[in-house]
Amino acid sequence: VDRTARSGAGGIVFLLTDYGDADEFAGVVRAVIARDAPGVAVIDLTHGIAPYDVRGGAAALERCAPHLGPGVVLGVVDPGVGGDRRSVALEVPGTLGTGPGRGPRHLVGPDNGLLLWAADWFGGVEAAVALASMDEAAAGSGVVTFDGRDRLAPTAARLAVGAPLADLGETVDPETLVRLADPVVRLSWRRLEAEVSWIDRFGNVQLAAGVPHAETAGLVGPLTIVVEGRSHPARRVLAFGELAPEEIGLLVDANRRLALCRRQGDAAAALGLGPGQTVALSP
Amino acid sequence: VDRTARSGAGGIVFLLTDYGDADEFAGVVRAVIARDAPGVAVIDLTHGIAPYDVRGGAAALERCAPHLGPGVVLGVVDPGVGGDRRSVALEVPGTLGTGPGRGPRHLVGPDNGLLLWAADWFGGVEAAVALASMDEAAAGSGVVTFDGRDRLAPTAARLAVGAPLADLGETVDPETLVRLADPVVRLSWRRLEAEVSWIDRFGNVQLAAGVPHAETAGLVGPLTIVVEGRSHPARRVLAFGELAPEEIGLLVDANRRLALCRRQGDAAAALGLGPGQTVALSP
Amino acid sequence: VDRTARSGAGGIVFLLTDYGDADEFAGVVRAVIARDAPGVAVIDLTHGIAPYDVRGGAAALERCAPHLGPGVVLGVVDPGVGGDRRSVALEVPGTLGTGPGRGPRHLVGPDNGLLLWAADWFGGVEAAVALASMDEAAAGSGVVTFDGRDRLAPTAARLAVGAPLADLGETVDPETLVRLADPVVRLSWRRLEAEVSWIDRFGNVQLAAGVPHAETAGLVGPLTIVVEGRSHPARRVLAFGELAPEEIGLLVDANRRLALCRRQGDAAAALGLGPGQTVALSP
Repeated sequence: VDRTARSGAGGIVFLLTDYGDADEFAGVVRAVIARDAPGVAVIDLTHGIAPYDVRGGAAALERCAPHLGPGVVLGVVDPGVGGDRRSVALEVPGTLGTGPGRGPRHLVGPDNGLLLWAADWFGGVEAAVALASMDEAAAGSGVVTFDGRDRLAPTAARLAVGAPLADLGETVDPETLVRLADPVVRLSWRRLEAEVSWIDRFGNVQLAAGVPHAETAGLVGPLTIVVEGRSHPARRVLAFGELAPEEIGLLVDANRRLALCRRQGDAAAALGLGPGQTVALSP
Repeated sequence: VDRTARSGAGGIVFLLTDYGDADEFAGVVRAVIARDAPGVAVIDLTHGIAPYDVRGGAAALERCAPHLGPGVVLGVVDPGVGGDRRSVALEVPGTLGTGPGRGPRHLVGPDNGLLLWAADWFGGVEAAVALASMDEAAAGSGVVTFDGRDRLAPTAARLAVGAPLADLGETVDPETLVRLADPVVRLSWRRLEAEVSWIDRFGNVQLAAGVPHAETAGLVGPLTIVVEGRSHPARRVLAFGELAPEEIGLLVDANRRLALCRRQGDAAAALGLGPGQTVALSP
Repeated sequence: VDRTARSGAGGIVFLLTDYGDADEFAGVVRAVIARDAPGVAVIDLTHGIAPYDVRGGAAALERCAPHLGPGVVLGVVDPGVGGDRRSVALEVPGTLGTGPGRGPRHLVGPDNGLLLWAADWFGGVEAAVALASMDEAAAGSGVVTFDGRDRLAPTAARLAVGAPLADLGETVDPETLVRLADPVVRLSWRRLEAEVSWIDRFGNVQLAAGVPHAETAGLVGPLTIVVEGRSHPARRVLAFGELAPEEIGLLVDANRRLALCRRQGDAAAALGLGPGQTVALSP
């Protein structure tokens, strides 16, 4: 065990992936971080992002962002693995956050937009490097790489024990980083269309819209929700407890986003909704 | 990072929730504890309690109780979130348990009975406080709170680093804490009726009854199990290994409860049983 | 808290089980290790091995092996629990591995073959002990034991804080340890038959065969895969990115095994394949 690293560390690596919990993917990444950065804590944000769902992963990471203390975020949702997309490490100010030590200073992952919504929350990307390609021998051998295990986790471990960003790869212009399209939010007179950005375990449906959108569209009192051409009655409420058992409510959720929900019921199932669909709301 | 907290800590927060592992709920709670109490370890007991199943969560926490070392238990299964139920922090003797440092001293969660069966095991509630309401600004803004993240995890973190209970809220009489109804166990001559308290991954069916109940009902040798009016043959055994492949056995499980099981088979599926149902057993 | 253990430790226990994440089984094992070996980190490799699937667990542990730093591996997949199979603790050289401190020195689990493929990777078993039976009082009482909680986790904890192997049980000849049958790999002229050893979350199908097998069988360019008498076209590729959307590829995966896959698609579903089945490949 590298005692120097341990004593110098005390850092945290936060993990968010689409690896699931059934296979050993996440476990091996945890083990690699422990091996390369003994004494650094690993915190699993979630490994339950739907396979290849970069938008879902980016939205989840953005929701986590305000609540993280100092550390390194390692995100992996990577449909382009084995293609030519870059892997990157990003530096953010670290001065934003809710704890005394403020938030993360670094994010590591594929350059496909997964990290940028969270990086925006952290104050934007101050510096970025493209990680060196896996060694040429490996690349030439026709062996597929497990990027999370072989490149991203070791990089996060090095950052967690204090390696400077510039040591980890070639500097790239933050403006060249791949950015996801903004979520769909369309406002018109007495009408809000918004993309579903998350359906949680309880069937709550988070929309990519916030309080100002609801106010502008006049969403107060009784509402109509249109999903795939079908209308459903709903009601603007302040809390779950105001809802009758079968009723659909629109409220402002704990991420300050608009959400459709039922009281101890599954609003997504009731509305036939899945992530990425678009919903229209009218008073 | 608050180094003082870290060095003074070394504590543990045990988590048990119905958050599941697919969303980032549990991950954010872990991150908040790491942020507020650096150096405190987080141990996930489980996040797999069925959504809103307070009884299932209370039973799981009670099963864990004898095996926990010192620390703070944070439990969240909370169908009443957003209603008017209290959140509480409880103090227990800490002198019971199986390790040299004995068991937990504090439990934090909703006041809905989730924590009390475990607290009973720990020797009963010595002191309790109701956590202060979320700040009035938030309450008045119509934003739903994520109690686990915004109130319960910070409270558990403070207890884990040594804050006195009295600092965390208004003292309440432990007698006023909400208590779940006792599980159904009815004994009559040569007949035991018992509630199903747990069905595990392997299909083992734990009943809310123990060895004395089996003895009183004369459950030895061949048995009849009645589920929803249908009878099934079974047999009292001491170990899985005694069972023939399709046979249903009644044994005393590792929590010293009666359990219905099959050898490498799913007893719950074979009997058509779910949690909360009641089973009748006769010799 | 046993401060001596904490300061003397800094060790790691790696967990791999078929407990799943819904029940509290894995959580209680984590808690017992924290109780008995404060300061030792627990790393979950996975708890998602299919119930009772010893071969699947052994293969997963073997895949993890090269990436683990020093520590104790605790593996539990145990269809024979409650029967007469032994529990064992094994010592391996610890001089193999990818980190500066090299790999694990000990493995703990049932004597059913689960641990040996990984132990082989670590350089073979240098010494082995059979763990003492649970105390006779417990054994005689007809109470089923939770071996992972009551015997294996405490044993792993003791090894993690430095207890010598010989203190933990009776020495046994490593040659007497139960070994799983080798995976099916049959090579003939222009034909390779191989057992499916893993199907991951993304539907990739790992075979129990490697690069030399593919070369000997002449698997280059277009291929035919036969599954249960049905033929499917496929193609040898070096990376996911070379595949057309519906195409099945054969590549060398990140464990240097042959794998059938699709580009962002589920190859196992497309081929109707499950673990343990055998596949035939021809050029």
